[in-house]
Amino acid sequence: MNVMLRGRKRHYRTVSFDAASNSVVLIDQRLLPHQFTLLETDDFRQTARAITEMVVRGAGAIGATAAYGLAQGACAFRGSSLAKFSRHVELVYHTLKAARPTAVDPVNAMHKVQTIMMTGETVEEQQALAVAAAEEFAQEDVRHCQELGRHGAKLIRNGMNVLTHCNAGWLAFVDVGSATAPLYAAQAQGKKFHVYCDETRPRSQGATLTAWELAQQGVSHQVIADNTAGHLMQRGKVDLVIVGSDRTLGRTGEVANKIGTYTKAVLAHRHNIPFYVAIPLSTIDWTLRSGFDIPIEERHASEVLGAWGIVENPNAALRSRRSGKTHLARGQRAYVRVANPTSKALNPGFDVTPADLITGIITPLGIYPPAELWARRRELGCAQRA
Amino acid sequence: MNVMLRGRKRHYRTVSFDAASNSVVLIDQRLLPHQFTLLETDDFRQTARAITEMVVRGAGAIGATAAYGLAQGACAFRGSSLAKFSRHVELVYHTLKAARPTAVDPVNAMHKVQTIMMTGETVEEQQALAVAAAEEFAQEDVRHCQELGRHGAKLIRNGMNVLTHCNAGWLAFVDVGSATAPLYAAQAQGKKFHVYCDETRPRSQGATLTAWELAQQGVSHQVIADNTAGHLMQRGKVDLVIVGSDRTLGRTGEVANKIGTYTKAVLAHRHNIPFYVAIPLSTIDWTLRSGFDIPIEERHASEVLGAWGIVENPNAALRSRRSGKTHLARGQRAYVRVANPTSKALNPGFDVTPADLITGIITPLGIYPPAELWARRRELGCAQRA
Repeated sequence: MNVMLRGRKRHYRTVSFDAASNSVVLIDQRLLPHQFTLLETDDFRQTARAITEMVVRGAGAIGATAAYGLAQGACAFRGSSLAKFSRHVELVYHTLKAARPTAVDPVNAMHKVQTIMMTGETVEEQQALAVAAAEEFAQEDVRHCQELGRHGAKLIRNGMNVLTHCNAGWLAFVDVGSATAPLYAAQAQGKKFHVYCDETRPRSQGATLTAWELAQQGVSHQVIADNTAGHLMQRGKVDLVIVGSDRTLGRTGEVANKIGTYTKAVLAHRHNIPFYVAIPLSTIDWTLRSGFDIPIEERHASEVLGAWGIVENPNAALRSRRSGKTHLARGQRAYVRVANPTSKALNPGFDVTPADLITGIITPLGIYPPAELWARRRELGCAQRA
Repeated sequence: MNVMLRGRKRHYRTVSFDAASNSVVLIDQRLLPHQFTLLETDDFRQTARAITEMVVRGAGAIGATAAYGLAQGACAFRGSSLAKFSRHVELVYHTLKAARPTAVDPVNAMHKVQTIMMTGETVEEQQALAVAAAEEFAQEDVRHCQELGRHGAKLIRNGMNVLTHCNAGWLAFVDVGSATAPLYAAQAQGKKFHVYCDETRPRSQGATLTAWELAQQGVSHQVIADNTAGHLMQRGKVDLVIVGSDRTLGRTGEVANKIGTYTKAVLAHRHNIPFYVAIPLSTIDWTLRSGFDIPIEERHASEVLGAWGIVENPNAALRSRRSGKTHLARGQRAYVRVANPTSKALNPGFDVTPADLITGIITPLGIYPPAELWARRRELGCAQRA
């Protein structure tokens, strides 16, 4: 998508590959929204480290990063022995796989690249095929998001207020995003609408990443506390909710997504506001039979007990200067403890929204009621037998 | 309630009066939960300033502070001319009234003190009556909260998980609190239970004040993000919700309270979890005919876009020291900007919960279904004709 830098608009992907210098180019998401920086990795080990250190996050984005990382590692090989090359590629694969061991996207992405690569007959051919396959993988991620956006944009009419939660934006994919894709497509069609971004505590991905994305694209938006959507719905100020999903159960239509998604679905249901979930097909889980079987990650209490941000309070610096103590530097990134220091926190990272609260699932192939996923499992890519 | 200081438990009221030194003694709530400090005001102007500067907040607490401030001002008068004394008291009254012009509690409290004071025949007598009346006002606030607690404690059974939102605790009153009163009463009866404190963004009164109070009283509790209660309810981990109220409509049973209260009520309703509102009688509004007529205060966007806390990140200091820049002082209070710097926020401070979502209203006189308030308006202190 486009980023405004010094008054000029430029197009960036979350992740891309520079074949000339054999480097992977990533938007450094750790510094957003306060600083826009590209990070270029020179070899596959650096690419793996970028995944580990959350330079890049989001299923689609880390899948593409791993695909590019595998091609990058393959291209760094010097020599013509296919046996040695193959051992080298195995090392690259395992290094990238270990970068985020619980994620499934990097593994799937690298398997796709490897399958195509293996059809080459020389090291040089395999290297060229790896780059082409990684590019195709990234390109497919973009195409799917664009298709999803094309279908979802039909839901957005002029003058609507749309609520979104967390970040299922282009930063979580190679480009365009999932929950944001219908917004960007509707904007491209010239529709006028307004977006409310739930700040999405405790990690604030709505206030930081989604708000930044929408600002870059010039989409009208406001950040709201997670407490506010209910009030806005009660006053008739929300017309549509679109969220993303970390895992959608193909058998039941249940959706696991960032904590707070379920709350918004319950509120939307009470107010008869359509509630849609936008997903790439790769997040459909065809195996699990109940949302209660989805493991809910328990995250660190410090996320709830405080917040990361940029120090912006001149008075604090002033008070401190007077007292003679080292003063706060404005503009510096810091974690502040907000909560009572002797209190503990409970921090589940995700929740599960049942199918009866979901109006439709927006996929690259079309929009379906959640209960229809299983009947359409063949076209939606389910490889399993029923 | 009790405060632990250097390992010793001591009883404090949010506001009290020291007749010997003619000073009002306040817990400085601006520094909580990170620092416990008492602030003593030497004259009524300082007392007014303490109200303005939010040293003390909450309806009951600022009412008592104004009552004490009026007595304090009266006692500072030297002379025996009743006419001059009366003009002086008028000045005191207007100074304290102007300290928080939109609040009704200080005015009501001072009227009560003045009515009793006027029955004295000399300046000295009136001064003594003013102090006695202010003490009685504060004492009555405590008694009402205790009565409310006695009724509410019946709802709490061993092993329960109770959810609360924002701070309607003893810090908002002279002592005991409203939404917290049933908890403290149940604890005194030896009941074992656990409290989930909604952090209550954007001002985080749950994570700061309620969590601090509960920690001081030794009540088992955890802070949760405002996004989390829905998930906990879905998994059967919440048995009861108790919140406070800023304004309760006597005619309809609707409750205006901190933003996010409505959301919790909708969630509790979906899960058949009892949802109670604890109120002192002074917050009942017998005039308005619809919750939509309650003005919803629009607060500053900076509350949503960032957070206040205590700098607690040693790495930030370290990184900065290396770079040679002024480094962050750990333990210093600061505001950090969390959200995208070019985004705006919408920040309504309150919402309105309709009567059909409220199981009961806990008052000092008993627990009533919200629809019964109007029928019981005489005993509940409605002075109006129907």
